Amino acid sequence: MIAVDWGTSSLRLYRLDAAGMVLERRRSDEGVLASAGRFGDVLARGIAGWDDPVVLLCGMVGGRGGWQEVPYLDCPAGIAELADGMQQIQPRGFDGRALWIMPGLRDAAGDGMPDVMRGEETQLAALLDALVVGSHLVCLPGTHSKWVNVRNGCIQRIATAMTGEVYAVLRKHSILGRLMPAEDGRFDAFAFEAGLHRSGEEGGLLHHLFGVRTAGLFRQVAEPALPSYLSGLLIGHELRGCGVFTQRPRPAQVHLVGNDRLLGAYAHALTALGIGVQRHPEDLAAHGLHALWTRRTAAVAA
Amino acid sequence: MIAVDWGTSSLRLYRLDAAGMVLERRRSDEGVLASAGRFGDVLARGIAGWDDPVVLLCGMVGGRGGWQEVPYLDCPAGIAELADGMQQIQPRGFDGRALWIMPGLRDAAGDGMPDVMRGEETQLAALLDALVVGSHLVCLPGTHSKWVNVRNGCIQRIATAMTGEVYAVLRKHSILGRLMPAEDGRFDAFAFEAGLHRSGEEGGLLHHLFGVRTAGLFRQVAEPALPSYLSGLLIGHELRGCGVFTQRPRPAQVHLVGNDRLLGAYAHALTALGIGVQRHPEDLAAHGLHALWTRRTAAVAA
Repeated sequence: MIAVDWGTSSLRLYRLDAAGMVLERRRSDEGVLASAGRFGDVLARGIAGWDDPVVLLCGMVGGRGGWQEVPYLDCPAGIAELADGMQQIQPRGFDGRALWIMPGLRDAAGDGMPDVMRGEETQLAALLDALVVGSHLVCLPGTHSKWVNVRNGCIQRIATAMTGEVYAVLRKHSILGRLMPAEDGRFDAFAFEAGLHRSGEEGGLLHHLFGVRTAGLFRQVAEPALPSYLSGLLIGHELRGCGVFTQRPRPAQVHLVGNDRLLGAYAHALTALGIGVQRHPEDLAAHGLHALWTRRTAAVAA
Repeated sequence: MIAVDWGTSSLRLYRLDAAGMVLERRRSDEGVLASAGRFGDVLARGIAGWDDPVVLLCGMVGGRGGWQEVPYLDCPAGIAELADGMQQIQPRGFDGRALWIMPGLRDAAGDGMPDVMRGEETQLAALLDALVVGSHLVCLPGTHSKWVNVRNGCIQRIATAMTGEVYAVLRKHSILGRLMPAEDGRFDAFAFEAGLHRSGEEGGLLHHLFGVRTAGLFRQVAEPALPSYLSGLLIGHELRGCGVFTQRPRPAQVHLVGNDRLLGAYAHALTALGIGVQRHPEDLAAHGLHALWTRRTAAVAA
């Protein structure tokens, strides 16, 4: 089978054997935004030479503005609900293949505003088998960081923080970026921890952000270290606001899913705050799609 | 005398009589950023035809990257310290005139990071005479909102929130802006209050920002009203973080200084939170410069 993780800005394709082992992988920048209006062509080129009959897709490809919108499922949802929610599409040019798109997940029971994910639920599907017993907190850091409560193998709650995007727009378009070097450079652990510590003080994020400027003006943080200070400040606010600190009881550890660089920063922050971490690799989506397909075909067979 | 309020992005010039009455006013977009390297030319053109011998300047013109940097004074500071801190400059082309630049103010006793203002201290100078007795909280909303504690006529503490700039960069450069109409349009009181209310709930600003997106996705807030929702959310976080809520005892009223549109939003938010407001006009800088000059000349005469 072929597993496709098609997000807003990137496209990852995997060819899997029956046991879910990755045989080949491909990657391009032809994410959903870049592929609008020609999804079929992009996919056909992406899987050229792979003759597997089943193609499973997850991510923003199933969102509004994607290839075909697949409605959100509501939490709580586990492997069974996700497998059952996938929808077959029949675009032209794919005769002899079965194409399926995963649903996203919505947490409507939330704290005043619904929260959603699309793509991360499939990464989580690869972990759910291991999280069948008890309560677990999973964090998938990124442009929009996802915090997910898993209980007895079901995704219960979703909370998203716009940490990565806020970092990027402030870095690139605000007065804070003007004090910083053009590129992020080396991670500065001391400045990162200073930002993390600052996030726990009075004043709120909007005030603390101005402190990034005065930290630079008065040389309390050296200019090359300002990006790390800003990163620590934002991640600190994320953790204190919607992460581990709102959990009762406070969890002893957090499962982290993502790329090494991001996970390094989050692991650093959590460890500094006395929380344990368990890291998982970024490309869980292929394994999740395999698990969901296995579940679906087993259910149909039964 | 001539009073000049020379900020980052705008230049305002006033001709005053001896009693401080505004005789004429001029305004241009030739702020400090646009005037770099040719401050003398811009000023000469700005005051052409006004032959008054004294020219007083305040704002970023005295900051790093301005015409000439005038060091920050430290809080607490009142009229006397500010008047004493102004520095004369002698650029070519202004024979027969005396040019003075105001100092900025720094609060180094702060909560972990110094805070600063440059320009607002001169606006405040126009109010200090009226705030001689007791404690007062003044807010000057804007790109960088200033919250100022005044006690017995002295500026004691400064806290800045980057509310206006964060609004602008999210509006223009983030995924939140994509859901909104190109222009802000009419203020929507209902959406503004919903955002204000949301700011008091659990989750933190980075999480609440993602809720602006889901509010749009699930039509909980109509698209034309999303800018007002975002504005209420950010102003709410500002008020709760570094505004009235950190004051002990909580103040019964806040002095607001600024333009009508901004003051309207802040007055709306404060009133909704049960705090009284007293509004002051935006162009206090000219009156402040007159008050400081009067004080300085009186001190020199004595």
